Amino acid sequence: MTSSTAILLISCPDQKGLVAKFANFIYANGGNIIHADQHTDFAAGSFLTRIEWQLDGFNLPREIIGPAFNAIAQPLQANWQLHFSDTIPRIAIWVSKQDHCLFDLLWRQRSGELKADIPLMMSNHADLGEIAQQFGIDYHHSPITKETKQEQEAKQLELLQKHKIDLVVLAKYMQILSAEFIAQFPHIINIHHSFLPAFPGANPYHRAYERGVKIIGATAHYATADLDEGPIIEQDVVRVSHRDSVEDLIRKGKDLERIVLARAVRLHLQNRVLVYGNRTVVFE
Amino acid sequence: MTSSTAILLISCPDQKGLVAKFANFIYANGGNIIHADQHTDFAAGSFLTRIEWQLDGFNLPREIIGPAFNAIAQPLQANWQLHFSDTIPRIAIWVSKQDHCLFDLLWRQRSGELKADIPLMMSNHADLGEIAQQFGIDYHHSPITKETKQEQEAKQLELLQKHKIDLVVLAKYMQILSAEFIAQFPHIINIHHSFLPAFPGANPYHRAYERGVKIIGATAHYATADLDEGPIIEQDVVRVSHRDSVEDLIRKGKDLERIVLARAVRLHLQNRVLVYGNRTVVFE
Amino acid sequence: MTSSTAILLISCPDQKGLVAKFANFIYANGGNIIHADQHTDFAAGSFLTRIEWQLDGFNLPREIIGPAFNAIAQPLQANWQLHFSDTIPRIAIWVSKQDHCLFDLLWRQRSGELKADIPLMMSNHADLGEIAQQFGIDYHHSPITKETKQEQEAKQLELLQKHKIDLVVLAKYMQILSAEFIAQFPHIINIHHSFLPAFPGANPYHRAYERGVKIIGATAHYATADLDEGPIIEQDVVRVSHRDSVEDLIRKGKDLERIVLARAVRLHLQNRVLVYGNRTVVFE
Amino acid sequence: MTSSTAILLISCPDQKGLVAKFANFIYANGGNIIHADQHTDFAAGSFLTRIEWQLDGFNLPREIIGPAFNAIAQPLQANWQLHFSDTIPRIAIWVSKQDHCLFDLLWRQRSGELKADIPLMMSNHADLGEIAQQFGIDYHHSPITKETKQEQEAKQLELLQKHKIDLVVLAKYMQILSAEFIAQFPHIINIHHSFLPAFPGANPYHRAYERGVKIIGATAHYATADLDEGPIIEQDVVRVSHRDSVEDLIRKGKDLERIVLARAVRLHLQNRVLVYGNRTVVFE
Repeated sequence: MTSSTAILLISCPDQKGLVAKFANFIYANGGNIIHADQHTDFAAGSFLTRIEWQLDGFNLPREIIGPAFNAIAQPLQANWQLHFSDTIPRIAIWVSKQDHCLFDLLWRQRSGELKADIPLMMSNHADLGEIAQQFGIDYHHSPITKETKQEQEAKQLELLQKHKIDLVVLAKYMQILSAEFIAQFPHIINIHHSFLPAFPGANPYHRAYERGVKIIGATAHYATADLDEGPIIEQDVVRVSHRDSVEDLIRKGKDLERIVLARAVRLHLQNRVLVYGNRTVVFE
Repeated sequence: MTSSTAILLISCPDQKGLVAKFANFIYANGGNIIHADQHTDFAAGSFLTRIEWQLDGFNLPREIIGPAFNAIAQPLQANWQLHFSDTIPRIAIWVSKQDHCLFDLLWRQRSGELKADIPLMMSNHADLGEIAQQFGIDYHHSPITKETKQEQEAKQLELLQKHKIDLVVLAKYMQILSAEFIAQFPHIINIHHSFLPAFPGANPYHRAYERGVKIIGATAHYATADLDEGPIIEQDVVRVSHRDSVEDLIRKGKDLERIVLARAVRLHLQNRVLVYGNRTVVFE
Repeated sequence: MTSSTAILLISCPDQKGLVAKFANFIYANGGNIIHADQHTDFAAGSFLTRIEWQLDGFNLPREIIGPAFNAIAQPLQANWQLHFSDTIPRIAIWVSKQDHCLFDLLWRQRSGELKADIPLMMSNHADLGEIAQQFGIDYHHSPITKETKQEQEAKQLELLQKHKIDLVVLAKYMQILSAEFIAQFPHIINIHHSFLPAFPGANPYHRAYERGVKIIGATAHYATADLDEGPIIEQDVVRVSHRDSVEDLIRKGKDLERIVLARAVRLHLQNRVLVYGNRTVVFE
Repeated sequence: MTSSTAILLISCPDQKGLVAKFANFIYANGGNIIHADQHTDFAAGSFLTRIEWQLDGFNLPREIIGPAFNAIAQPLQANWQLHFSDTIPRIAIWVSKQDHCLFDLLWRQRSGELKADIPLMMSNHADLGEIAQQFGIDYHHSPITKETKQEQEAKQLELLQKHKIDLVVLAKYMQILSAEFIAQFPHIINIHHSFLPAFPGANPYHRAYERGVKIIGATAHYATADLDEGPIIEQDVVRVSHRDSVEDLIRKGKDLERIVLARAVRLHLQNRVLVYGNRTVVFE
């Protein structure tokens, strides 16, 4: 179980024989499947699956797996991604001034919960540079104004390329990314401090307090051009009462944000999240 | 503890000595407090409290308690309500076609969980009349159209008066009450089948499915002229996944709706809910 | 999706090619898989799977599916069960004096949530006979004493056979079944009013109160000869506080018991539960 | 609201006039109550309350409050504690090799969530000394064997006195403290990695896996001479499934442990926890 594995994430129009065809591809080449899960969305007529198998004893060399599988996928009009469990993805964490999600991600990475490298941090503020230094991470401070935003985003994209970043995690980055930026770098997970679609936009805890809700939440989602409208990966909630001030909501919310973001990043890193339409299938 | 009690729900501008003044009133007249809870909303400068004491051994006759307390309340600019635990409130349940909340309330009333009489049911459909008959409850079928709404609401108000109804419970009543109606009968609890303020209005489960949320909820609130905007009494949630179809969300939601509505009605009947602004204090 | 389906629940020693072999069997005979989920227990070296496919267009007649599949299963040392979604299982509900789980199950059956017939109720008390009558269900009252237990269980087994019962649901049946009885009729789901393994045995709410726990739970499990030790199907919990008396715990617990038992029965009826060792795999 | 406050935690036999007497004491001396909550345990005949008032404008000097209140408390046979919100308690964190609770507490202290000083760490291992150094905390490494335990505990007690420690937090300290130690230093909060009373003692996650539970939990409690039997302050749970290996349970449990322990420590530091018998009242 500790040996390296390959993972296929596949979506295609539903039809007979899909499970058999995909499983046969693995079996015919000597692979041992250790996880196979599938979902059929009858309304959309879509078949979605995740298959993970051990590379030990698999006959195809890694670089051949993709092309070989493509011969099967093409006639089925299947979209697919191939991943290897021993690839260590590279994450850039973007922050503003709050450090709770940042610390949490760094602790989880150090403890082995998140199998990833974190070579880069970006911020529109200087405040958290010290933490970056402490953990030996490159810190780029890019103050953002209306005027400089376009220019700064261009530099940010360059940095992501330079550091070969696979995933950007917005760990309480309080700036809105432009649609252009997201189009060019679509692998971005954001944590929003409310139970979306309740309280999108600014100051959700203040508005939750005003509305007198009895439960608050947090939402991790992929960033899209429409603010707070991207595919949801994970949500969680906590009960509050009239005794909780806005400050209490913020404090309780921080614990939610940390955990919800960490779960979403982990699921993504394990290639368990498949986006289709504006929804996600999470193969747990 | 089983003896009858009196309950005061009080709200007033915050100032020194409130707890002492209210407690002295009870103590000076020989009352034993069995529940006293208070909340200070510092932002609003409001003091809110619930005090419950045993009538056994209390020196004031029931009809004098209110006037006597008013002498204390007036100088403090306090709003207050006085209730007695042995008063059995009278509930009218309003339904459309779905019976899950209805059955649940009837079972809880019969089993003693809800201390109330339920002499009246109203519906814009005939479907659930049989259940009313089975439980010996008056059933009024009032089909509603744009043209007849005003007239029907007038009749409905009459019926509430005739049956001396204290509380209307909208147990999946799929019609909107007019602002005029609510102004004339303000004691109405509604169950909304979403985690408000997410998905107000129609078809929340379909929209939750479309949005791909990972958690759904239900909300019990007092009805106000603004649809789905009234003070929230209780909310709860349940986890869902990509495997859940709209039908699954509806099914899971029904369990939430039943429990959230029942909790809210029980809290109201026990005089544990105090509305201020558009928020509630729930003295549990 | 509404057409009838066949479901295979399979467990066997883990080895290469299992997914392919099972999927090929369906595909080769023209079946369209609509749900396939598998689990590998690496510690136990076990492979467990649930496969559901549409019978529409499937080439094998129903009575041949089992024998045909057995030819594949035998060499793999696989245990398997075959079910058809249009079979309506027959349930006997056993109760004592409490009616909350009973009412809940009856309501869910009537509303179509539970696809089953409920022709039989059994009880060691006469109290709930009226409800049976109201719902048109046979009610057998078998008072149990130490002396009569063996004899009564013999009669109960006969009744289960006579009514062709597939599943017994102990809906707050406060008697212990003998190991012999369970050996002869192993399809029994019980609801225990605690978060097992906390508070097995009698009076769990009183003991939870004494211990001062902050959360209580309920557990639905298959009955085994060891009391409260059977494979767990579903559990859920609710928060309590020092304000909750034993009576409050019991009241809150009832809502848990109803929901947890109903979920477990539904999962069982949908053939989503596979027992191995003393654990369950729940294919949701 | 940011001014300093005094807090009284009181328990006494229930009788008439308690709320009035306590409130009058505050009011007569010019105090403004900002939080007053009470609980009556009818079974035990006990009255328990927490009263918090602003020191601004209070007529009694701090050192007089206790003696003055005692004159009221004595005739009522009341036990009471007096605390001031601007006192900064001193915490010693005890660890073994795991750092997740430790990091969490340190982050919360630094961020202002926990109003306390943390001058001292103790461990039976050397592993986490580096973290102590990083945060500028004294680290005492005391390896424990059967033979050295008594001697080591004597030294540990000395250290607690020397550092004027108010509260010991066992943040995954995997040693059992002797009854003598606890008798001499009773202010100890422990985190147990199960939903007590399920799985007391060693290896709860392994045993939870074996038992096949569908939910795991964590419990923060005061340490007593009976292992894992002390008064429970806080518990929380998280859902698990057959897919979760023991390692997954441990990982998910860590998030629970961090949050449950942090909540319990915060409640204690805010003087919101009152122990009576083996239970706690948590005045939230």
